[in-house]
Amino acid sequence: MESLKVIEIVGTVAFSIAGTFAAMEKKLDVFGTFIIAFITALGGGTLRDMLLGEVPVRWLFEFSSGFIVLLSTIIGLLFKTVIKNYHNVLLLFDSIGLGFFTVVGIQVGIGLDLHPIACIALGTITACFGGVIRDISLSNIPLIFQKEIYATTCIFGGAIFFLLQSMDIPKMPVEIICLVFIVLFRLLSVKFHWQLPVIWKPVK
Amino acid sequence: MESLKVIEIVGTVAFSIAGTFAAMEKKLDVFGTFIIAFITALGGGTLRDMLLGEVPVRWLFEFSSGFIVLLSTIIGLLFKTVIKNYHNVLLLFDSIGLGFFTVVGIQVGIGLDLHPIACIALGTITACFGGVIRDISLSNIPLIFQKEIYATTCIFGGAIFFLLQSMDIPKMPVEIICLVFIVLFRLLSVKFHWQLPVIWKPVK
Amino acid sequence: MESLKVIEIVGTVAFSIAGTFAAMEKKLDVFGTFIIAFITALGGGTLRDMLLGEVPVRWLFEFSSGFIVLLSTIIGLLFKTVIKNYHNVLLLFDSIGLGFFTVVGIQVGIGLDLHPIACIALGTITACFGGVIRDISLSNIPLIFQKEIYATTCIFGGAIFFLLQSMDIPKMPVEIICLVFIVLFRLLSVKFHWQLPVIWKPVK
Repeated sequence: MESLKVIEIVGTVAFSIAGTFAAMEKKLDVFGTFIIAFITALGGGTLRDMLLGEVPVRWLFEFSSGFIVLLSTIIGLLFKTVIKNYHNVLLLFDSIGLGFFTVVGIQVGIGLDLHPIACIALGTITACFGGVIRDISLSNIPLIFQKEIYATTCIFGGAIFFLLQSMDIPKMPVEIICLVFIVLFRLLSVKFHWQLPVIWKPVK
Repeated sequence: MESLKVIEIVGTVAFSIAGTFAAMEKKLDVFGTFIIAFITALGGGTLRDMLLGEVPVRWLFEFSSGFIVLLSTIIGLLFKTVIKNYHNVLLLFDSIGLGFFTVVGIQVGIGLDLHPIACIALGTITACFGGVIRDISLSNIPLIFQKEIYATTCIFGGAIFFLLQSMDIPKMPVEIICLVFIVLFRLLSVKFHWQLPVIWKPVK
Repeated sequence: MESLKVIEIVGTVAFSIAGTFAAMEKKLDVFGTFIIAFITALGGGTLRDMLLGEVPVRWLFEFSSGFIVLLSTIIGLLFKTVIKNYHNVLLLFDSIGLGFFTVVGIQVGIGLDLHPIACIALGTITACFGGVIRDISLSNIPLIFQKEIYATTCIFGGAIFFLLQSMDIPKMPVEIICLVFIVLFRLLSVKFHWQLPVIWKPVK
């Protein structure tokens, strides 16, 4: 199977589980949980495809993604009772989804011959906006606009992607280095409370 | 007039009135109320058409839907002072809109030869997402993600639709049974507090 | 340069600065601030283009708008420490963006030979929905749905536009009168607390 397909599947599983846990926290019923998992996993890619005019969206014709979301939701529900440190698990799967979906979005842009800046924008949208729509739907402040570095990680990862590519490194290692960087950078930035400067500290 | 057209008009009227009452609760001015009614009535269908690539959206060319929303908003505003049990009226019209718009969305999918699962997804999106966008705009937690059965009703109704259709029952009775089922099921589920299982009850 | 291009640039600068100040209030980091400025400035036009099927959206190919947002964000950040009356500055730039982008949206509709009502709808969407998406992303109640006259200003401005145009006044003065009207009307309506009637005052 093509490496990009594998990356997309792993990202879908990771975001579905992150969505399932976010829905649990709000005590949604099983069906609402599935919808939230679906939105988290497929929302970013759907927005990307709508911005690109790549419609009708694929998941209305191909049910493989929906099926992966369904399975992942069930697995997430089953594991809930076993898991103690709920917050860390959500963070882990959210970070994995972030890294993998950034690479998917960048490759979509490359496939359309877009400029690297546009590709990085598409990667960031693919990775971040499923979570944004999820958080807005659940009346949470979107993670992306909270203090910790979030979207910036995708942009750094995207810059590394094109830097490595310009050095003629083959596609697969470039993809793997990019997504490992994003996952690790995200996890470390949360663990060590890395923040970008907030320039406008009150003057007094 | 075609039965589907009638179903769409009734759904538009019902959701416009539900939107008007939701805007009233937030004390919006007359114009904001109209916009919220418009979003509630046409938001789900607009999202559906954008996902399908059926753009430019119809309401930019045909003003009949906008006119129905306007009339319904005025009627909703006039009846406000007469109505005592505000909450039940909102629920009633929301349920009617839910049933009628699910059928509209399913028929759009059938018209595009989509798989029944995709048709039911389109029915659910058409019926539910106008209300979701309305609730998010008004900073309410979307009804769809609250405890009571909501989107699930549309899915059950959609399953009944295709079950009856597979038994060679003609289109109009199928449509009517499907929409009556959804309206009644929604009203009963609220009255008797039906809930889907919330699997992840805290362990302790 | 064409007058419409100038109007679009001024609107982009104004909304970027308004978005920057809104992000500051929520203490976002520099990158989150840029994303919010981008959403505020380009969100309304993007929604308009998606409703019209004018995709892929332009900002994925032409980076001039993104560059204007970036510069405006930096300027906004620099001026923060100097500005005392933060709230009035945000209001001023939001009003300027509102006037200028209404004209942009109306002209897009005219360019597609749409009916004046649809043109005014497009002008209102272009002007208002960047701010709506910004406010929802920041978990604020959207300005548009608060008490003060907001979207109504765009509609009044749009009506004046087509009234003047029907009197054979040339395009540029029509555009200027329309946008000056909207900016002033918005500022005055806030200063003097103009409100549209809220019909449903509690009866007792």
